[in-house]
Amino acid sequence: MTVEGLPMAVPAEGLPARVRIHEVGARDGLQNEKTAVPTAVKAEFIRRLAGAGLTTIEATSFVHPKWVPQLADAEELFPQVAGLDAALPVLVPNQRGLDRALALGAEYVAVFASATESFAKANLNRTLEESLAVFEPVVRRAKDEGVRVRGYVSMCFGDPWEGPVPLAQVARVCGALRDMGCDELSLGDTIGVATPGQVRALLALLNERGVPTDAIGVHFHDTYGQALANTLAALQHGVTTVDASAGGLGGCPYAKSATGNLATEDLVWMLHGLGIETGVDLGRLTATSVWMAEQLGRPSPSRTVRALSHKDQ
Amino acid sequence: MTVEGLPMAVPAEGLPARVRIHEVGARDGLQNEKTAVPTAVKAEFIRRLAGAGLTTIEATSFVHPKWVPQLADAEELFPQVAGLDAALPVLVPNQRGLDRALALGAEYVAVFASATESFAKANLNRTLEESLAVFEPVVRRAKDEGVRVRGYVSMCFGDPWEGPVPLAQVARVCGALRDMGCDELSLGDTIGVATPGQVRALLALLNERGVPTDAIGVHFHDTYGQALANTLAALQHGVTTVDASAGGLGGCPYAKSATGNLATEDLVWMLHGLGIETGVDLGRLTATSVWMAEQLGRPSPSRTVRALSHKDQ
Repeated sequence: MTVEGLPMAVPAEGLPARVRIHEVGARDGLQNEKTAVPTAVKAEFIRRLAGAGLTTIEATSFVHPKWVPQLADAEELFPQVAGLDAALPVLVPNQRGLDRALALGAEYVAVFASATESFAKANLNRTLEESLAVFEPVVRRAKDEGVRVRGYVSMCFGDPWEGPVPLAQVARVCGALRDMGCDELSLGDTIGVATPGQVRALLALLNERGVPTDAIGVHFHDTYGQALANTLAALQHGVTTVDASAGGLGGCPYAKSATGNLATEDLVWMLHGLGIETGVDLGRLTATSVWMAEQLGRPSPSRTVRALSHKDQ
Repeated sequence: MTVEGLPMAVPAEGLPARVRIHEVGARDGLQNEKTAVPTAVKAEFIRRLAGAGLTTIEATSFVHPKWVPQLADAEELFPQVAGLDAALPVLVPNQRGLDRALALGAEYVAVFASATESFAKANLNRTLEESLAVFEPVVRRAKDEGVRVRGYVSMCFGDPWEGPVPLAQVARVCGALRDMGCDELSLGDTIGVATPGQVRALLALLNERGVPTDAIGVHFHDTYGQALANTLAALQHGVTTVDASAGGLGGCPYAKSATGNLATEDLVWMLHGLGIETGVDLGRLTATSVWMAEQLGRPSPSRTVRALSHKDQ
């Protein structure tokens, strides 16, 4: 995949020198596929992502297979990729999921909370407080075992049922996750409605409440095309962990190839253009997403993947 | 088209209170259609854009019909929309084009220059200097007639033949257009490769060379998904004129419904989210783009148009 010296690197003031990309395609992307992807393809996808220089690759989820049948092969998949030179976080919804992950030697897990009552109810079938109460012993035990813990917070900027979400409510959930012992948070704009001022305001409030910026990752969706502008705002605030999905896989609530997750390639284009190090080889990453799109039988929604792969034809 | 109180308006520091959107869909969008759109549809499109609150709507081009047959009906179209409550700039490539536009009472015209030799040659079949020499008497005469003049500069951030474009070269072309008398410039990222640091660097250099920020508009393409992040960077520099195309029409160099131009709806979502006034009614604008997509027989590539129109189904 040819990149031809583009993008031209022109740094801007006040941005971090290096960003850690938290790659979610293999988990957040593939769990949204109608049909489960074969385990061997998942393993090869993760190997290629690592080969493209991604250092944090969310591998799978230890949710009950009844809820996410697409990732029912977690026990089979994880050992196939465990030796790679990359951190491989996995989702754990409860104690049972944590047990399964720990038994396989997982060193990095994530719990999945909601900033709103409506989504806690819809996604987890619990009240917000009940869901936090479930996570508390999970996080504690993971920390006792020396495992790194990420706390996802979804619906941080808007909720399909509740509309705009008060920042103080988001901060309260974030605070609770930090108090339990989460090493890092991932602020999710699950329905993609956020804009840059809202991003800056939430980050400032979290800092005020004692959450340091280096414990915060951002997870933007591109439903309204805002993900990269919001990322720029977060970088300007000092955020250095950004979630993205190779090829823009996953979270397609509306249309075929409509993007949910920010595409890793679009993110890398901006970061490299800003002279920010990621360790990622954009050409190899794009080739990986083109390969994965072939496996899935439909084109990648990433604009960068489309532009670069058409260039080569 | 329902917008439901979203996006939530959270202003950010250091941004303008109001932005003027220079809507290019009717010209830049429709000139890229394979088949010419009927004049009545074009006129209705422009009327609906004005009805949605857009105040600057580029209407058509007085280029020779041999080069742009899609806009060969300029003489017929312009009088049909001339009474609208919006500024209606038109493209004029040379003296003959300016004569035609002035005869119809145009009060705002645009010339179309290139920042690179390769594109001047490919697009205008002239050297860069020759093309500037053609524009000089056009701009002068327009100014003598009391007509506002915009100078487009394409390939400001990268060129498909030359690769990265030196900022000083862009600044030289911009300076030449200003010296001729252009009231405003539009900095085009024709192949969509720019990133925010490059945008800030070019704006700073233009200021240094005596071009004030209020004489600068930005024209980003979304080929690599960077348009809105680049727009945010330009707003942070103080730019208050942003080009966009309703529904993301136009400039689809690679794939069906792949975006070239920044979609006006995606831009408006960010601006309104930042509390920046545009005068645009996002619901009416989106409805206009859905209507136009029906006329063209394919879905809009704008993410906001897709998300909002699926919400209503």
